[in-house]
Amino acid sequence: MSRYNLAAMPSELESAMESLIKVFHRYASKDGKSGTLSRRELRELMENELSTFLKSQKDPAAVDKIMKNLDTNGDGQVDFEEFVSLVVGLSIACEQCYQMHMKKMGKQ
Amino acid sequence: MSRYNLAAMPSELESAMESLIKVFHRYASKDGKSGTLSRRELRELMENELSTFLKSQKDPAAVDKIMKNLDTNGDGQVDFEEFVSLVVGLSIACEQCYQMHMKKMGKQ
Repeated sequence: MSRYNLAAMPSELESAMESLIKVFHRYASKDGKSGTLSRRELRELMENELSTFLKSQKDPAAVDKIMKNLDTNGDGQVDFEEFVSLVVGLSIACEQCYQMHMKKMGKQ
Repeated sequence: MSRYNLAAMPSELESAMESLIKVFHRYASKDGKSGTLSRRELRELMENELSTFLKSQKDPAAVDKIMKNLDTNGDGQVDFEEFVSLVVGLSIACEQCYQMHMKKMGKQ
């Protein structure tokens, strides 16, 4: 494979960033304002894309509470920057589990 | 496909989060402290995984400056939280380009 082809193919990290943007817009474009997630769109995104996390939340009002936390400017809509802060929080929590898991594996 | 299989398959968003963690640890484990990126590991990660972005940086000291900005606690190492803030910044910049692109497409 030539250098040109390698450069044209997105890396794993670039693909991950592209996924964040694509998933956000897939749900944000469903109704009303297309550049932001309404409460309903956020719920749908979380039910479909973060079902593992959502199932671990025993509180039925979890999505509403998350919406309230994410919507820092209080306009009832979650924009991309606000959405990314949710993904970051979850990734950091996952990474801490991963580190603990690796430490445990190392001790065995 | 049964509900069970659907639940077991990670969503696009979950795969993206997994990629962030995997890519970070692939480079962080190369030398020295395995849970963090040294300057050399960060440079290698950016050259391989963010080559498109890095090529757009005309400043040869770009990686050093990014390292300085990311390393908020000043220990010469970039941990996962610091790394994620780089990915977030780039994703937000990409998303703004995406929004502008979509607006342009809509006007045509």
